[in-house]
Amino acid sequence: MAGSELTNVRSPRVKAARRLTKRAYREQDRRFLAEGPQAVREALKLDGVTLELFATAEAELRHSELITEATLQGIPVHRASGEVMSELSQTVTPQGLLAVCGLVHVPLEQALGGPSGPGGPSGPGGPGGADDTGDTGGVDDTGDMSGAGGGPRLVAVLAHVRDPGNAGTVMRAADAAGADSVIFTDASVDPYNGKCVRASAGSLFHLPVVIGAPVSAAVRQLKERGLRVLAADGAGKHTLDDVDLSGPTAWIFGNEAWGLPEEILAEADDVVRVPIYGQAESLNLATAAAVCLYSSARAQRVS
Amino acid sequence: MAGSELTNVRSPRVKAARRLTKRAYREQDRRFLAEGPQAVREALKLDGVTLELFATAEAELRHSELITEATLQGIPVHRASGEVMSELSQTVTPQGLLAVCGLVHVPLEQALGGPSGPGGPSGPGGPGGADDTGDTGGVDDTGDMSGAGGGPRLVAVLAHVRDPGNAGTVMRAADAAGADSVIFTDASVDPYNGKCVRASAGSLFHLPVVIGAPVSAAVRQLKERGLRVLAADGAGKHTLDDVDLSGPTAWIFGNEAWGLPEEILAEADDVVRVPIYGQAESLNLATAAAVCLYSSARAQRVS
Repeated sequence: MAGSELTNVRSPRVKAARRLTKRAYREQDRRFLAEGPQAVREALKLDGVTLELFATAEAELRHSELITEATLQGIPVHRASGEVMSELSQTVTPQGLLAVCGLVHVPLEQALGGPSGPGGPSGPGGPGGADDTGDTGGVDDTGDMSGAGGGPRLVAVLAHVRDPGNAGTVMRAADAAGADSVIFTDASVDPYNGKCVRASAGSLFHLPVVIGAPVSAAVRQLKERGLRVLAADGAGKHTLDDVDLSGPTAWIFGNEAWGLPEEILAEADDVVRVPIYGQAESLNLATAAAVCLYSSARAQRVS
Repeated sequence: MAGSELTNVRSPRVKAARRLTKRAYREQDRRFLAEGPQAVREALKLDGVTLELFATAEAELRHSELITEATLQGIPVHRASGEVMSELSQTVTPQGLLAVCGLVHVPLEQALGGPSGPGGPSGPGGPGGADDTGDTGGVDDTGDMSGAGGGPRLVAVLAHVRDPGNAGTVMRAADAAGADSVIFTDASVDPYNGKCVRASAGSLFHLPVVIGAPVSAAVRQLKERGLRVLAADGAGKHTLDDVDLSGPTAWIFGNEAWGLPEEILAEADDVVRVPIYGQAESLNLATAAAVCLYSSARAQRVS
């Protein structure tokens, strides 16, 4: 435990963490908040990602293994009063544990397996401005995974997704379905948003995430690497059951309210809809994404 | 428009609607609130379900077709001030339109196709205490659907699901996947909860919903009607890809945090898990349910 309990919500340390609830400061400070034992556990598995930990006395007891792990890694652990934790937390019922983390996203080329094509080196240093995190061990681990077997086989692209809960749930589903990476295009929500981090249930730390890629550039690079690019949209000509999903596939998911814009639909290799057998108008974005990603995962394993 | 604009949040009419935000009063008054144009549109499609409509002046203009439809049906439409709507609304950004509806759930036996077995009469009057809504045209429509083809082929059971957003999203996915009914067991959230109604995106009005059925009774009746009862649980021996889903199937979904209790797992014909191909510990309940339900829908149509 570094020092005594933090009780002043106006202390510089608390204010420095608190400002990370705003996107502009996350981008400026290149840090974000990961709240709750699950997120903290996953963050601690990546070398060099967790920079500081805040814990209430109660959480220290309840999650002593995480406190021990952080201490062993030399990460400063600050005991925080309930009031300080409430100030930092973005949940109604704070779980008493919160990490300040360095950004974990990687450049698009690295997520797709390196600049020299499928199977090429996936080292740090590609374009995209995440150099400061590109050389963490954990990110390399997941980057290697995507390179295994000759390039990515399943990628989720979030284009114009604005709801952080939906975006985080898609990350979690993509991780579960064995996707190689998740790409947030330039018009999507910030994956470091607190709600998104929570909804991802640790998956933000599990697979390479790309931020701010222009949709056109992402689609072009995905195609260059041999992935079939499918736009998931209720207006699709084909349904999920009509298309061959056995090959490497990238799915583009759009905004729940208004789907995907024309230019993206035009750039995709095909526009595919989840069939609606009942009276529902549509599916929730995250559930539709899960159905699409699992259809791909199954088709790739059966074939 | 019935009378002048309601501006007093303490008026008896506003208070009578406002109290429906609490479960005890919904049960006592046998009414619930459906908020937003989508829910109101679907409610109006069912004869006799919508009892009153509250609309702001702005919403009246924007959704004039719904106001006209309600008026044609003889449903009282009350113009409400923004303040009154905020009092009634359970959303951060009220959409200006809110219906007071009669309960729409049906008895278990009716949802499963009538007391005399598959294909039997599905009239009102079965046990379960929904007699006042059992004879609405809309519910009969959906009841008939479940009886078509010799009994239900796909049923979703929510056991111990506590999060209203998750429960509503499962209802929506079940509707989309063509399920014949959704059963909320006695330990689950109230489907008339405002968040649940919103997350269902109208599906609460689309397919027969059962409330408060004891799990054991539901499982027994589902088996009696020839459905294979599968418990969806991360601890399942079989994965979704290992089981034959082509026959009539009922899926039981449990609490996100702690899954399904032992006694339910023991009563099911099989315990099935969604395979996790990546590093995620589990899937969000609603996304897991969507993947299971769509796997069934596909298997039933391919076979």
